[in-house]
Amino acid sequence: MNAIIITIGDELLIGQVVDTNSAWMAIQLNKAGIKVIRRVAVGDVKEDIIKCLEEEKKHAPILLLTGGLGPTTDDITKPLLCEYFGGKMIVDEIALQNVKYLFEVVFKRPMLERNLKQAEVPDVCTVIQNKRGTAPGMIFHKDECVFVSMPGVPHEMKGMMEDTVLPMLIKAFKVVPVVHRTLMTFGMGESFLAERLIEFENNLPPGIKLAYLPHFGLLRLRLSGSSNNINFENILEEHFTQLQFLLNDVMISDRDETMQELIARLLIHKNKTIATAESCTGGFISHLLTSVPGASAYYNGSVVSYSNPAKEDILGVDQQLVTLHGAVSEPVVKAMVQGVIKIMHTDYAIAVSGIMGPDGGTAEKPVGTVWIAVGSLHNIVAKKLHFRFERKINIEVTAMNALNMLREHIISEV
Amino acid sequence: MNAIIITIGDELLIGQVVDTNSAWMAIQLNKAGIKVIRRVAVGDVKEDIIKCLEEEKKHAPILLLTGGLGPTTDDITKPLLCEYFGGKMIVDEIALQNVKYLFEVVFKRPMLERNLKQAEVPDVCTVIQNKRGTAPGMIFHKDECVFVSMPGVPHEMKGMMEDTVLPMLIKAFKVVPVVHRTLMTFGMGESFLAERLIEFENNLPPGIKLAYLPHFGLLRLRLSGSSNNINFENILEEHFTQLQFLLNDVMISDRDETMQELIARLLIHKNKTIATAESCTGGFISHLLTSVPGASAYYNGSVVSYSNPAKEDILGVDQQLVTLHGAVSEPVVKAMVQGVIKIMHTDYAIAVSGIMGPDGGTAEKPVGTVWIAVGSLHNIVAKKLHFRFERKINIEVTAMNALNMLREHIISEV
Repeated sequence: MNAIIITIGDELLIGQVVDTNSAWMAIQLNKAGIKVIRRVAVGDVKEDIIKCLEEEKKHAPILLLTGGLGPTTDDITKPLLCEYFGGKMIVDEIALQNVKYLFEVVFKRPMLERNLKQAEVPDVCTVIQNKRGTAPGMIFHKDECVFVSMPGVPHEMKGMMEDTVLPMLIKAFKVVPVVHRTLMTFGMGESFLAERLIEFENNLPPGIKLAYLPHFGLLRLRLSGSSNNINFENILEEHFTQLQFLLNDVMISDRDETMQELIARLLIHKNKTIATAESCTGGFISHLLTSVPGASAYYNGSVVSYSNPAKEDILGVDQQLVTLHGAVSEPVVKAMVQGVIKIMHTDYAIAVSGIMGPDGGTAEKPVGTVWIAVGSLHNIVAKKLHFRFERKINIEVTAMNALNMLREHIISEV
Repeated sequence: MNAIIITIGDELLIGQVVDTNSAWMAIQLNKAGIKVIRRVAVGDVKEDIIKCLEEEKKHAPILLLTGGLGPTTDDITKPLLCEYFGGKMIVDEIALQNVKYLFEVVFKRPMLERNLKQAEVPDVCTVIQNKRGTAPGMIFHKDECVFVSMPGVPHEMKGMMEDTVLPMLIKAFKVVPVVHRTLMTFGMGESFLAERLIEFENNLPPGIKLAYLPHFGLLRLRLSGSSNNINFENILEEHFTQLQFLLNDVMISDRDETMQELIARLLIHKNKTIATAESCTGGFISHLLTSVPGASAYYNGSVVSYSNPAKEDILGVDQQLVTLHGAVSEPVVKAMVQGVIKIMHTDYAIAVSGIMGPDGGTAEKPVGTVWIAVGSLHNIVAKKLHFRFERKINIEVTAMNALNMLREHIISEV
């Protein structure tokens, strides 16, 4: 069963907004067994939107539209859809009550005429109520296609997808779910692994596909397929077991998760706690660790010691070490680990110090040089790395490598 | 002059990768006066890619392709383009030297047969050398359209766009640059501002457009247009001055920048320094502040005091305050501001404590409750806010509000 995602809005074509909705929608649709075959973004231009609907409905029976339902004048989607599907605008009473409730009780702001307009819908659609915002969603039918129009605000769209749209599509199209199994490796080149898996890939049955998904040193390998064969899940599982065996030495996880989720699992399993002492990553590792729900079970806190006095006064790093070796050095990151473990009372710590760019590099320590240390009070390992990206990416790659070093360290202690 | 961005790769259709390339490309193209009228994403399926090229070349003379040039078997774009444009594969000597150099000198890894293949290109293209990776880019011509194929790795694509593709397009198509002027407001509803700007928008000349771009409480208002009229920049500037006048009371910046860039500018201008004491945001505010190059000029460091002992031991928050009022309270965030200013020796600090969810809420302090305090040692303001999003968004919105409170506080001191 195929679907096409259509995003509407000038903001996507001028690059002011990164389209995170499409990725989220694609994940949910895939899980439900609906394959996204194309994604198209068009601007707030009537002819372009209509041409797009006309063209795309030839390619798939499910068209999911997001965006263009806001209250400002650049949002033209709703009247356009009304005209396209041959309806007229009427007020939806439930949507109207919702708009009034949101302004009176939640936003506590005066309501404007144009906000009331958000409760209007074409009389030829099925209304999807919006529990998280003012703009209702709409379901239309034409030429054996179903068209779903949702707001572009991510959490409003997500709510509608989960509550209404996905259950409706699964039921209406009797879809066969896609089965996925993912494992992750770290620090290995894509082509290096592909070389090792030539035979494995050649021997995969036609219905099963292997995808390589690299992300900052982390490589996801995903087996997927769908079939009406009741044994299909077992068949896929057999191939996945084989894949795990082939990559046993480089695999870091047998499931699809983030590096921080993996670390969280590991720490909770071992009943251990962590702190970070960050210089160049400026709190990003701490942010990753606390983005996992329930982080307080394993995470106590961090010191972002950007300035040298902060390293010395708060973390107790010997001033002489900084003077002698520089802030970006093995002795300093090791002392940072010890310092933060002492003040945060944790089992482990991660410490980083480096030069993320674009400025601050020297001949001896060019931009991209990073020292990372991980460990417990009396067992610390450190490594010097060098990245060649722009500032933001250097920070992200450093964080991923630091978390992976911690993972290796914890496992090695078994 | 119109362009279409085509991204190739299953990873975009299964949602494993968020497409940040397209947004970046659109910004650069717009600045250069090239309008992106559509963005299309297709999978690694030969027929789908060819159908897409055939269809899209009808709509615009510039087609920019990214992705599908990696060394693994799911990357089929290069041979397909070779066939589509009627060429045969040959080795490009410069690209070959580059691949060899990268493996020998930079990656320090053995090179595989499939890596050497990356130096092969169709003999009907102009090669774009890749200074940042192994896969070269390619420029093709067909039916009065120019097709540019680039790798999907962001920093490789960006390098090619800046060094080669944009200068080539500007020259070849003699484009008229688009002029943009952006101002930013914070905390105001889109419809509220739109109401105030009805007359302004109605009076805009046909060539000038106003766009509303909301992002976590921050609203960008962007005037843009292009014209051969040599006075056009002045005309747009006049309208922008009028817009500033109309929004004088809610405007926070007269340029297109991030909230953290605005704060950085303000602190550098006033020659002041900042620290943060974060509980629920887990270092995210610190991450934002340090993501701006040159942050050490105004940022000293942070304490992420996730656990209560960390608040008490490191920041010196009176244990009684925590017992009496709870960690999420006005007295505690105020004490956190004072504590972190003392140990980080800064002029200002931001402190936050809240419940980001999904768990941890109570009847009195439900999920989404946040106390934020900002100020200097003897002049601190605090505010209680409540958000209704998911964990990650709650963290981002809290950070944006905290930074805006700091901005207001600094300005109020003048």
